[in-house]
Amino acid sequence: MANSEGNKLWGGRFVGNTDPIMEKFNASIAYDQRMWDADIRGSKAYVKALEKAELVTTEEMNSILHGMEQISEEWAKGAFVVKPGDEDIHTANERRLKELIGEPAGKLHTGRSRNDQVVTDMRIWLCDAIATLKEDALQLVATMVERASVEIDVLFPGYTHMQRAQPIRWSHWILSHAVAVSRDVERLQEIRSRTNVLPLAYDLLMLLLHVNVELEFDGISINSMDATGERDFVAEFLFWASLCLTHLSKMAEDLLLYSTKEFSFIALADAYSTGSSLMPQKKNADSLELIRSKAGRVLGRCAGFMMTIKGLPSSYNKDLQEDKEAMFDCFDTLHGALRVTTGVMSTLKINRPVMEAALSPDMLATDLAYYLVRKGLPFREAHGLSGRAVFQAESKNVPLNQLTVEDLAAISPLFDRDVAAVWDYSSSVEQYSAPGGTARSSVTAQVQHLRRWLQDHTQ
Amino acid sequence: MANSEGNKLWGGRFVGNTDPIMEKFNASIAYDQRMWDADIRGSKAYVKALEKAELVTTEEMNSILHGMEQISEEWAKGAFVVKPGDEDIHTANERRLKELIGEPAGKLHTGRSRNDQVVTDMRIWLCDAIATLKEDALQLVATMVERASVEIDVLFPGYTHMQRAQPIRWSHWILSHAVAVSRDVERLQEIRSRTNVLPLAYDLLMLLLHVNVELEFDGISINSMDATGERDFVAEFLFWASLCLTHLSKMAEDLLLYSTKEFSFIALADAYSTGSSLMPQKKNADSLELIRSKAGRVLGRCAGFMMTIKGLPSSYNKDLQEDKEAMFDCFDTLHGALRVTTGVMSTLKINRPVMEAALSPDMLATDLAYYLVRKGLPFREAHGLSGRAVFQAESKNVPLNQLTVEDLAAISPLFDRDVAAVWDYSSSVEQYSAPGGTARSSVTAQVQHLRRWLQDHTQ
Amino acid sequence: MANSEGNKLWGGRFVGNTDPIMEKFNASIAYDQRMWDADIRGSKAYVKALEKAELVTTEEMNSILHGMEQISEEWAKGAFVVKPGDEDIHTANERRLKELIGEPAGKLHTGRSRNDQVVTDMRIWLCDAIATLKEDALQLVATMVERASVEIDVLFPGYTHMQRAQPIRWSHWILSHAVAVSRDVERLQEIRSRTNVLPLAYDLLMLLLHVNVELEFDGISINSMDATGERDFVAEFLFWASLCLTHLSKMAEDLLLYSTKEFSFIALADAYSTGSSLMPQKKNADSLELIRSKAGRVLGRCAGFMMTIKGLPSSYNKDLQEDKEAMFDCFDTLHGALRVTTGVMSTLKINRPVMEAALSPDMLATDLAYYLVRKGLPFREAHGLSGRAVFQAESKNVPLNQLTVEDLAAISPLFDRDVAAVWDYSSSVEQYSAPGGTARSSVTAQVQHLRRWLQDHTQ
Amino acid sequence: MANSEGNKLWGGRFVGNTDPIMEKFNASIAYDQRMWDADIRGSKAYVKALEKAELVTTEEMNSILHGMEQISEEWAKGAFVVKPGDEDIHTANERRLKELIGEPAGKLHTGRSRNDQVVTDMRIWLCDAIATLKEDALQLVATMVERASVEIDVLFPGYTHMQRAQPIRWSHWILSHAVAVSRDVERLQEIRSRTNVLPLAYDLLMLLLHVNVELEFDGISINSMDATGERDFVAEFLFWASLCLTHLSKMAEDLLLYSTKEFSFIALADAYSTGSSLMPQKKNADSLELIRSKAGRVLGRCAGFMMTIKGLPSSYNKDLQEDKEAMFDCFDTLHGALRVTTGVMSTLKINRPVMEAALSPDMLATDLAYYLVRKGLPFREAHGLSGRAVFQAESKNVPLNQLTVEDLAAISPLFDRDVAAVWDYSSSVEQYSAPGGTARSSVTAQVQHLRRWLQDHTQ
Repeated sequence: MANSEGNKLWGGRFVGNTDPIMEKFNASIAYDQRMWDADIRGSKAYVKALEKAELVTTEEMNSILHGMEQISEEWAKGAFVVKPGDEDIHTANERRLKELIGEPAGKLHTGRSRNDQVVTDMRIWLCDAIATLKEDALQLVATMVERASVEIDVLFPGYTHMQRAQPIRWSHWILSHAVAVSRDVERLQEIRSRTNVLPLAYDLLMLLLHVNVELEFDGISINSMDATGERDFVAEFLFWASLCLTHLSKMAEDLLLYSTKEFSFIALADAYSTGSSLMPQKKNADSLELIRSKAGRVLGRCAGFMMTIKGLPSSYNKDLQEDKEAMFDCFDTLHGALRVTTGVMSTLKINRPVMEAALSPDMLATDLAYYLVRKGLPFREAHGLSGRAVFQAESKNVPLNQLTVEDLAAISPLFDRDVAAVWDYSSSVEQYSAPGGTARSSVTAQVQHLRRWLQDHTQ
Repeated sequence: MANSEGNKLWGGRFVGNTDPIMEKFNASIAYDQRMWDADIRGSKAYVKALEKAELVTTEEMNSILHGMEQISEEWAKGAFVVKPGDEDIHTANERRLKELIGEPAGKLHTGRSRNDQVVTDMRIWLCDAIATLKEDALQLVATMVERASVEIDVLFPGYTHMQRAQPIRWSHWILSHAVAVSRDVERLQEIRSRTNVLPLAYDLLMLLLHVNVELEFDGISINSMDATGERDFVAEFLFWASLCLTHLSKMAEDLLLYSTKEFSFIALADAYSTGSSLMPQKKNADSLELIRSKAGRVLGRCAGFMMTIKGLPSSYNKDLQEDKEAMFDCFDTLHGALRVTTGVMSTLKINRPVMEAALSPDMLATDLAYYLVRKGLPFREAHGLSGRAVFQAESKNVPLNQLTVEDLAAISPLFDRDVAAVWDYSSSVEQYSAPGGTARSSVTAQVQHLRRWLQDHTQ
Repeated sequence: MANSEGNKLWGGRFVGNTDPIMEKFNASIAYDQRMWDADIRGSKAYVKALEKAELVTTEEMNSILHGMEQISEEWAKGAFVVKPGDEDIHTANERRLKELIGEPAGKLHTGRSRNDQVVTDMRIWLCDAIATLKEDALQLVATMVERASVEIDVLFPGYTHMQRAQPIRWSHWILSHAVAVSRDVERLQEIRSRTNVLPLAYDLLMLLLHVNVELEFDGISINSMDATGERDFVAEFLFWASLCLTHLSKMAEDLLLYSTKEFSFIALADAYSTGSSLMPQKKNADSLELIRSKAGRVLGRCAGFMMTIKGLPSSYNKDLQEDKEAMFDCFDTLHGALRVTTGVMSTLKINRPVMEAALSPDMLATDLAYYLVRKGLPFREAHGLSGRAVFQAESKNVPLNQLTVEDLAAISPLFDRDVAAVWDYSSSVEQYSAPGGTARSSVTAQVQHLRRWLQDHTQ
Repeated sequence: MANSEGNKLWGGRFVGNTDPIMEKFNASIAYDQRMWDADIRGSKAYVKALEKAELVTTEEMNSILHGMEQISEEWAKGAFVVKPGDEDIHTANERRLKELIGEPAGKLHTGRSRNDQVVTDMRIWLCDAIATLKEDALQLVATMVERASVEIDVLFPGYTHMQRAQPIRWSHWILSHAVAVSRDVERLQEIRSRTNVLPLAYDLLMLLLHVNVELEFDGISINSMDATGERDFVAEFLFWASLCLTHLSKMAEDLLLYSTKEFSFIALADAYSTGSSLMPQKKNADSLELIRSKAGRVLGRCAGFMMTIKGLPSSYNKDLQEDKEAMFDCFDTLHGALRVTTGVMSTLKINRPVMEAALSPDMLATDLAYYLVRKGLPFREAHGLSGRAVFQAESKNVPLNQLTVEDLAAISPLFDRDVAAVWDYSSSVEQYSAPGGTARSSVTAQVQHLRRWLQDHTQ
């Protein structure tokens, strides 16, 4: 009678049947099939190495390579049929190879364990994914830098604690987020260098170097046990995604604030907004809310995976199977979030008059303190006196710059007519001309710095 | 020309197009379609309430009900076709209803916002899911209780700190895990009572009571804003799943230890094991490793969702869309894990001779201390003297029970010939006859307690 | 020469010394000393049970009780001196007892393991902590309910997606948060019932019932292994704290928005604000930012503890020592956060004119749609037409209520002069008179409901 | 009357009092005082820059520097007295400076906001902490490498899925963990390079370069807004700590298994074990359990902090105050865990006879398959046949190597007398001579590689 277990690798030993619930619980083919290309590339490199080591004949190698190419075409066309018993992508490809070329298929796995194959495929796949995400992130930075360059003259309030603080350039705000994403790109490159390592480890023969040359890895694992059981590259990637998304969530939160009716600094393009099923007047910035929300999703994947690997014994344990869904989900999420953010940033409209009208004289209270510092007072004392001026203005219910010189002189005799020069937002921002500041020259320097950085990071 | 936006609800207002990447980022139909039945049940109840309130005619109601039944059949048969523009299950069902019955379809949504509908559907769905999981958990407890009843005479080492501690009954071990799962069932019921609440809230009319009666909710939300924006029931469910899986992970870890070659206390059925692609002799307890791993996955979902809702403003924000995938995934994971655990527990074989051979005299050192306590020493002093006996036995390289009476008398003059009675594992366990103990009577009482509990929790 | 190990319990056995780094890594006295009172109460109950079981004499019991009272006084006065070797509160109290009363001290630990004592003390401590937090939460709910009652006539915008949605009562907003906290109280009570269980388990004798009566526990653990190793009550409490803080973080976020210059709906009392060291005009709502931030802290504790217990074997493992700092920290954080929130809510000032000025005619677009529904249109169609009116108003750059009847009639012939009645915010909110709605009657009913609930939950 | 607010910086503005509960909720002095040295170093560099920029006179600078040195001595001696109103270390030092030198103290803060000062201090402190942890980690790697070098001849079972897999060298196991820690060191260095950046940003004047030279930072922040509000360096450090501890938890789990009675491969030194208060014979590996547990604690801190920063607006928000306790706690935990692990690894005793006795012929089943591969069979087929041999041996209840040549020949005619050569563990391990393998030459190469690496990473 037909064996319900199909063509399982350990077919020789087991006599019982498996529970269908267990089969499903155990199978990864539903999600790991997206590594089909990595699996085929890995196997092609491996069979070439086997041939060089004379473990397969040239004829066998050619047969295997040819079979692999056929399988590759089937996947590419969506014609590959997953069968019961194909518990993962590796089993599926191997089963299909045997159907296509018969006997020699069994030779492909000489000296290679499933665990090694899995981790090699994941590394190949993730290197590709990292390249895609890097491109997405560079595109976002480029968009922000160009926008910052164009809108450099727009002033609006800088906030701390969600309260208006000091006048800044809108471009200064844009670049604060671009800089964060540029750090993400740098971290991503470091992760790539640790991902792009050949882990095929528990190896009977001297195949490593051949495989490595073929697959263009940057290095080889130092210890085979470590190689099979470590998933640092996955954990690092999941955390990278989490940190990057906190950056995007921060930018999204700012923009959500700026797009409230109350702020009205910006309006999102319709392409990134949705309406309400109930309230006809609503225009909601769903894109930004989604970006904000994804930081939780991705960190959850990271924390979950860390919990899974906590306290595991050395080497391979089936628990590690949790690595793939987490990795795929974080890639998909970031790939979407980065591109949507680019779309939002390249299409939103700013409302310059409203932004500039949001500047108010009390935001120059620090400048008022510095006026006193220039007249010789220690900063702390000057700060206290400026605070009293603010309090006075509030009590009189007038803007800070409407206090008379007499009002001010009552607070400190150092105040004089020249205090009038303080009440100019454009001059205020120009004071911050140190590197990283909000003066025109400083912001221009930031733009130039990031343009060069973009060039350096685009091959 | 055809509108690429399909039949979006806010069709009246928007003039731009959406970005396809944004469309995909925004859509939930890929996963929320599994709530099709809850959505249809909710809408059927709602239209009946609308009719009672004379907001639709009886004819319109019948038309809508009939349309809904058709849609239900399409989903059940797998014949429902999701179209571009169907961004979620609610839009999809509504679009289809309009295709089937025309005009009156538009009346179904009178006084009901999408946000209310979403949360109602989720509550209906989760109540069903909770019922399923409760059944799974009861099945597991029942399996464990029956096994404990049968194998009550088997003794083996109890461990603390992974070190052999004192002799216990194997059934005592089984029941320690059954009790934990029984607490999970009780918690699940509490969550159900908070889930089974009608949130349809931002309601123009007095429809609530009708809908509530129809859907058999236990109560109605107290405040409409809270009702739309709170996802406590989801968060609680995700944490419930996490805590339940830590219990299963603990049992899995024990069983993984017991199934090592070194312990050899148990052997898993082949149905819950797999072999190695490399090593023909291997039999791996993959089922248990998977169960152990899922605790991380599920807690990750919980932590991620908590992070998503942290610091959100009141009422509905699109961020909440993260609720559904987390909820579905935790349900699927628990549904699988509980049933696989039941399978494992009902089919594993114990190796009684090995278990009993693992008991050794040093595990009776506490009993030796109690011997001295019975002769009048304070426990702390007796503990110290028993420790010296252990040290002495180790030094002489003999088992603790091979120390001569002279050896012992040199440690304390209270030791006498009657000490021989201490070296009996069966007597040892019988000392622990307090409730919860490992004596035969105590374990039997636990079995009876849990049998009654099972009866009380099975309708 | 003096033994550097002090009076360690396992003094009898070890011959080597410990590493001071290890000693510090291992010790918990620095934080678990706050359980001194629970430890003493537990021991007093235990010795009474020992006396009833004739394991200590009445004289010995009295001596121990007297010693315990002295120790209690020392702790209360801050006079207790922790000595090297006191690795935890239990060792410290036991060491001191021996100093005070000599020999009989050693009898206190007959039949009681350290692990049982630890978990009993934690349960006693947590029950007290839960009582405190319940009181804190009830105080907060009471404050909100009374404020809601007083300010019921204030209208302001309800928001979804951070966009103005429909007019609501300010009290409706307040109560939406009060209701969430009331659910927290109910959950807390459920946790208490599972915490208040006597776990003294690995018991030689029939002491349990005596101890239980003395300590007023609600029940006894069912299984001794489970009792020693389970920390469900801790995990549940940590998650409870996390969920409660997400509620407070949501309220804090709303209030932070409302206290921006741009919204200006509220002003925090100075007692809950701080200034800026740099900018004299700043007034920052630090209290709210801290509350918002703590949700992360507390969930981190919860997630961390869940990770720690994942995959642990049964019974006691030293890993469980992580339970106490997490529990203490979550208690302290919630105890602070709930009271600060009460302080904020009882002292903030609302700016009613600004709140009401923030209502705008477009927020009545849903009402405009319902106007058409009342004239017989299906809601979906009415929604589309109302959307067109909004678009028209935006195009003409006039408020929605400034469209002429002719403008409207061009959109739908159903519009007539009586449409003027739509433009009234007070009438608009009164439509939502279903339970949970924002009509005056509904909000009043919520206030009454919560007042009754408060009475029921205050003994 | 005395102002209960002490000398708060915003003294000029506030008229109300603060709530003592709020004061405590807000204050960070209890934990951030450990940055006293970083704060003083930062301020000393800053005043020198102010002098170069002629914002303070040389005399004032000297006075400030002298005052700072006094404060430094007070902290070092434990003589610094924190006063009410000292809400953080910066306020405390500033208050003390004013007491010591009067007026000029107020000039120190010219052009420097508290937020900039906080983040600068944290960066200085963390760079020191990273240097300490790097040293701890290098010490651990060095210990492992030397031990691996000495014990290279010891063989024992390699495990996958907690089941015996193939024979390996004990040194191979040791190095698998050493390699993981060496990756941690490399990641730590990358984080240092992003931590060691001067963030003093919102700067009035060209002070940056002076400060930078003085404090020996590697670079300057690119954008001032980003500089004030980003905590990437903290988040990265927290995750680094988490990943490093998962490595230590993996090693701890292995060692916990190996130190069970059932494995008995190793015995921990008494210095890293503890006894039981109840069971005199117990010796528990508490050190390893604590290390295992800390992975949860630290990941909890990381996840909690990520949640705290999720969705925060740009620039400084008080929420960021959560950064410091998390950073300190992770440092302390790692500093302890790394050193305890070093202690454990340098003192544990291995039980070579037991380790070698744990090797069994079935662990050579893969070798048996390769025997057939060498005779020309494809690996998959050979694997199946070897599996049948294992099954046969189990059925006959003999070790695999006790099957007769006839038994084997019945499975495959390729088996011949030369199969006897397969049953040698030493030869088996020597097959794995590829880089990273467990052959003597490969392990020796790993030792040499890590020795060179240690030299490169120790200045």
